[in-house]
Amino acid sequence: MKKTRLVILAEGSFGVLGSKTASCVIRYRWDDVVAVIDSSKAGQTAGQAIGFGGSIPVVAGLDDALKFDPNALLVGIAPKGGRLPAEWRKILLEAISRGLDVYSGMHTFLSDDSEFVRLAAERGARLIDLRKVPEDLPVAKCLAGKVDAFVVLTAGTDCATGKMTVALEMAIEARKRGLRAHFAATGQTGIYIAGEGIAVDRVVGDFIAGAAETLVLNGARENDLVFLEGQGSVFHPGYSGVALALLHGALPDALIMCHQPTRRFINDYEVPVPSVPEAIRLHNELSGFLKPAPTIGIALNCFDLSEDEALAEIERTEKETGVPTTDCIKFGAGKLVDAVLEHAKSGGKVRCGFRTSH
Amino acid sequence: MKKTRLVILAEGSFGVLGSKTASCVIRYRWDDVVAVIDSSKAGQTAGQAIGFGGSIPVVAGLDDALKFDPNALLVGIAPKGGRLPAEWRKILLEAISRGLDVYSGMHTFLSDDSEFVRLAAERGARLIDLRKVPEDLPVAKCLAGKVDAFVVLTAGTDCATGKMTVALEMAIEARKRGLRAHFAATGQTGIYIAGEGIAVDRVVGDFIAGAAETLVLNGARENDLVFLEGQGSVFHPGYSGVALALLHGALPDALIMCHQPTRRFINDYEVPVPSVPEAIRLHNELSGFLKPAPTIGIALNCFDLSEDEALAEIERTEKETGVPTTDCIKFGAGKLVDAVLEHAKSGGKVRCGFRTSH
Repeated sequence: MKKTRLVILAEGSFGVLGSKTASCVIRYRWDDVVAVIDSSKAGQTAGQAIGFGGSIPVVAGLDDALKFDPNALLVGIAPKGGRLPAEWRKILLEAISRGLDVYSGMHTFLSDDSEFVRLAAERGARLIDLRKVPEDLPVAKCLAGKVDAFVVLTAGTDCATGKMTVALEMAIEARKRGLRAHFAATGQTGIYIAGEGIAVDRVVGDFIAGAAETLVLNGARENDLVFLEGQGSVFHPGYSGVALALLHGALPDALIMCHQPTRRFINDYEVPVPSVPEAIRLHNELSGFLKPAPTIGIALNCFDLSEDEALAEIERTEKETGVPTTDCIKFGAGKLVDAVLEHAKSGGKVRCGFRTSH
Repeated sequence: MKKTRLVILAEGSFGVLGSKTASCVIRYRWDDVVAVIDSSKAGQTAGQAIGFGGSIPVVAGLDDALKFDPNALLVGIAPKGGRLPAEWRKILLEAISRGLDVYSGMHTFLSDDSEFVRLAAERGARLIDLRKVPEDLPVAKCLAGKVDAFVVLTAGTDCATGKMTVALEMAIEARKRGLRAHFAATGQTGIYIAGEGIAVDRVVGDFIAGAAETLVLNGARENDLVFLEGQGSVFHPGYSGVALALLHGALPDALIMCHQPTRRFINDYEVPVPSVPEAIRLHNELSGFLKPAPTIGIALNCFDLSEDEALAEIERTEKETGVPTTDCIKFGAGKLVDAVLEHAKSGGKVRCGFRTSH
């Protein structure tokens, strides 16, 4: 297998939140990345532009990126709804014609586009649609609630609060401690990073919970801890259904609630972000009748706060909720993994099926 | 346009709940139906087999059905997950080879099957996949909460509690009263009956709420009342995501809660059906932060109770909840339409956007 030498397309939006895919791939697969395309930040390094990623260069266009001898291009921007904007088409065609493999997390599949497919075949390039999902997903059957592994789902008060990062950081930290821990990816970025997973927001309604169930059953087979990446938020006007299907399909033993303290409104909507206690309460309501999934940790996303400000937010949140809280990027995931292990070891597993109170 | 002369395939499961599509099409499009295929009830009439549908004959197989000169066949059974069982394949091929149009509500599309497509083209038969959805659905943008029409969504304590029937009965009753009322179909059966709609459980996760929004915006354009057919239930382990997406995409002004008093467990699961007050409370929680959708009526599905038993259940439920309750099939939808009009006229419309309490 050839080493991936990746150019990330993040034109016009390279940033920690502006291009989640780009920034997360740089954080966890930095060794793959040879350049980032964003003409608005050309000349900077990734480190300068987003605070991490070191000397990875940001360049103005594909021509400049080609100087770094890439063999693949990743569409690192997630347009609303995931569909292909016309202006990116030209860049992708040029990349394919140069023989680069193209990874995409968009809802519009490259492999459904006859022009891309024809050109890729001609040039020996692969088209990898990270959001392409299995055809034979089941309807969820409450099976995930019965696995022996301890299953943790990252939930959020909104989209883009750090659910993938927190699940990944916890899995990495648990493995560092010698534990058999699995990160189960549910979105295009996590799938690129993990090399496997199911993009649950691309699954047809009836089978979303079944996709989550499948991920948990597979992850639990050879692991004692499964960290399932959450998607969307039950509070999000557009994506709440996916979030609830994930909760009911995965039937986790515990939740980690992800929240950005400085965000006031759900992205793009005139809808306030709920408080963490409010979010914990609603998730208790929504999990309780199938299998209680208590929130045993809180992950604050303080990327836009200083360390002192973040610590103050963490302290305030712990006081308000009584739940262990941290920022996994600023302070590591140790505190959250401690909380998970405490709950897993105290035999806190509750079997799925009949509700405990009625 | 030729008059539809429909055979319904309900092999092995013709019944009020066993074949929802079959029984509902007979109830609302009885004039289309020339025969029902179910070898286990062959020789009976629909009236004898399910209590309505009069003299429509139930026959043993397609050969017998052909005596009634059909020009179309409807797959009237919804297999779990909606996929095509092998044993039905032969019947469909035979029907197509006879030139019958075939309507299907399955997740597996007839029009994706090259053998069906080829044969249909040869024989001049049409293949109509009722679950096929538009390609260009949007992510929901909270627009449905701002229409002038009064929007009513039927919610349920489980699947198959009568959500489609109740929405349809209310629309019919409102139209009888001279009101501009629209039934918005969200499932294959409702789509066959109404001749339009979107099968929301077939929509990809990210766009389910957007599909509901689209249906409301379209329905509200030339109507004062929109009755949106609910799907699944927020309590259902497999389908809760679809139900929540519908609620948040449609942002209804009010809910009608559908419930079968004699059902103890969610179909196929070891999960108890919630009580009506419990269901009302959770729906209040789930709608409150976007746009309150109070439950202003309760529709009990008492198909398996006598009239006296049904009246007793209705009285008990009204006492327990304080909400107008009826069984729309046994006693008509008048009481529910009264409740809707009272709320619509009292200016009970609440604009979407900022939550009213925090």
